[in-house]
Amino acid sequence: MPDIDRRKAALLALLAPFASKAAQAETPKPSTHPAMEGFDMGRGDGVHWIGHEQIAMLMYPGMTVMDLIGPHSMFAGMMGATIHLVAKTLDPVTSDAGVTITPTATFETCPRDLTVLFTPGGTDGTLAAAVDPATLAFMADRGARATYVTSVCSGSLILGKAGLLKGYRATSHWSCRDALAGFGAIPTEARVVRDRNRITGAGVTAGLDFGLTMVAEMRDRTYAECCQLMGEYDPDPPFHAGSLKTAPPEVRKPMEELIAGFKQQAQALAATGPMP
Amino acid sequence: MPDIDRRKAALLALLAPFASKAAQAETPKPSTHPAMEGFDMGRGDGVHWIGHEQIAMLMYPGMTVMDLIGPHSMFAGMMGATIHLVAKTLDPVTSDAGVTITPTATFETCPRDLTVLFTPGGTDGTLAAAVDPATLAFMADRGARATYVTSVCSGSLILGKAGLLKGYRATSHWSCRDALAGFGAIPTEARVVRDRNRITGAGVTAGLDFGLTMVAEMRDRTYAECCQLMGEYDPDPPFHAGSLKTAPPEVRKPMEELIAGFKQQAQALAATGPMP
Repeated sequence: MPDIDRRKAALLALLAPFASKAAQAETPKPSTHPAMEGFDMGRGDGVHWIGHEQIAMLMYPGMTVMDLIGPHSMFAGMMGATIHLVAKTLDPVTSDAGVTITPTATFETCPRDLTVLFTPGGTDGTLAAAVDPATLAFMADRGARATYVTSVCSGSLILGKAGLLKGYRATSHWSCRDALAGFGAIPTEARVVRDRNRITGAGVTAGLDFGLTMVAEMRDRTYAECCQLMGEYDPDPPFHAGSLKTAPPEVRKPMEELIAGFKQQAQALAATGPMP
Repeated sequence: MPDIDRRKAALLALLAPFASKAAQAETPKPSTHPAMEGFDMGRGDGVHWIGHEQIAMLMYPGMTVMDLIGPHSMFAGMMGATIHLVAKTLDPVTSDAGVTITPTATFETCPRDLTVLFTPGGTDGTLAAAVDPATLAFMADRGARATYVTSVCSGSLILGKAGLLKGYRATSHWSCRDALAGFGAIPTEARVVRDRNRITGAGVTAGLDFGLTMVAEMRDRTYAECCQLMGEYDPDPPFHAGSLKTAPPEVRKPMEELIAGFKQQAQALAATGPMP
């Protein structure tokens, strides 16, 4: 897609002067994100500030698509990074709200050594993925070597069941954060929680704050701020009911009741502990 | 998908007590969102507070997927609403960042009378969509009767070219907001701009604020706040570079340069005025 090439080329030229951190990274061979095919990443000027991150984002039926796309929108600005949308097969995956996305890799074809292993959350779909042997085996295997092991929302249930949160502080959607203790994690209330190389985001829209945090971690703060400006992430919600602390009782109560069944199931899952 | 049914059923039961506005709406027959098939919406209790909105979200190659999914994540909580992901054909559509989504309707099969007509933005893909006769004909036709005519980010260029913003205040991504004047619109700087039934959001992530605003408009404030709590939309960006006013010069300058080409093309497009 020529539009991408031009945009990326322009970004390359313009971000170069201050992309000092990325410049120091070893990039013997730039990555080959499908969107960047045909783009001369060398540009003949010896600049190697482009990253070569390999980012794997898990997809499964019933995932919450906003959990996936929030971080993706920030990762997508990382020049030279390769984003893999990974599922069990290449069959399109339908989210809990009916958005169907085509994977770009399978558990078999996904690179073995990743910069970022990420999983979105959801409700019943997430509970199902968290007991699916193939999914857990994939997460445990890639998670054992990934530079960063990450999630947004209830995706941390999958990390927990895969044994990737033992002894780590982590967060989740408010409905199932406490359940993480069953996996040996230390439930922590924050928008984005980092403990060594485990970085987890709170519910759904926290993926934007998580994504920005990750870009700053992998590139630098200025690079992340550039992504923030391009995404015009200057939030101004018309209401302030986004957390249990700020939501009025008439909102909090029914939503807590609505999610009670899922909360209970998440706790039951976590009570079984991480997979052996 | 049983998980959706259960979730929606619970939402139905729990939101009922305070969903007074929606209760008064005429819902002779609940809609049939694919995710709700098999769900007994009547429940035998005579409650008709479920909406029956028909929401059409345009998709086109090169769209920015976050522009689409931000609002979608809020619309998806609207019990009984039907969301159509509309494209020229049912072939999967690939975004500017390589996310491929399957449409659920075409220009031909999309309902003629809509509650919401929405378009996401992008860069080159948006400029192409804004001069595509079939896309413009679809937007002009549905926009003539839709209860709300809406966009996020540079999607307002498509509305403008389709002749849907003449005499209306509207916003867009910061890079092309001023260009809207060429279409006879009144460029207005705000996160979400409403002028009669035209509701437009600023760049990319403004889709969340736009989405919440729309839910409150179509249902009520409490319903929107419930969506906000479930999506844990309590933003806390790690940096504050999300607008031209807050971004430091070392971020603003290169991003303005990066987007200069697109800005120029958007202005050139708008200079041709709305389609006859």
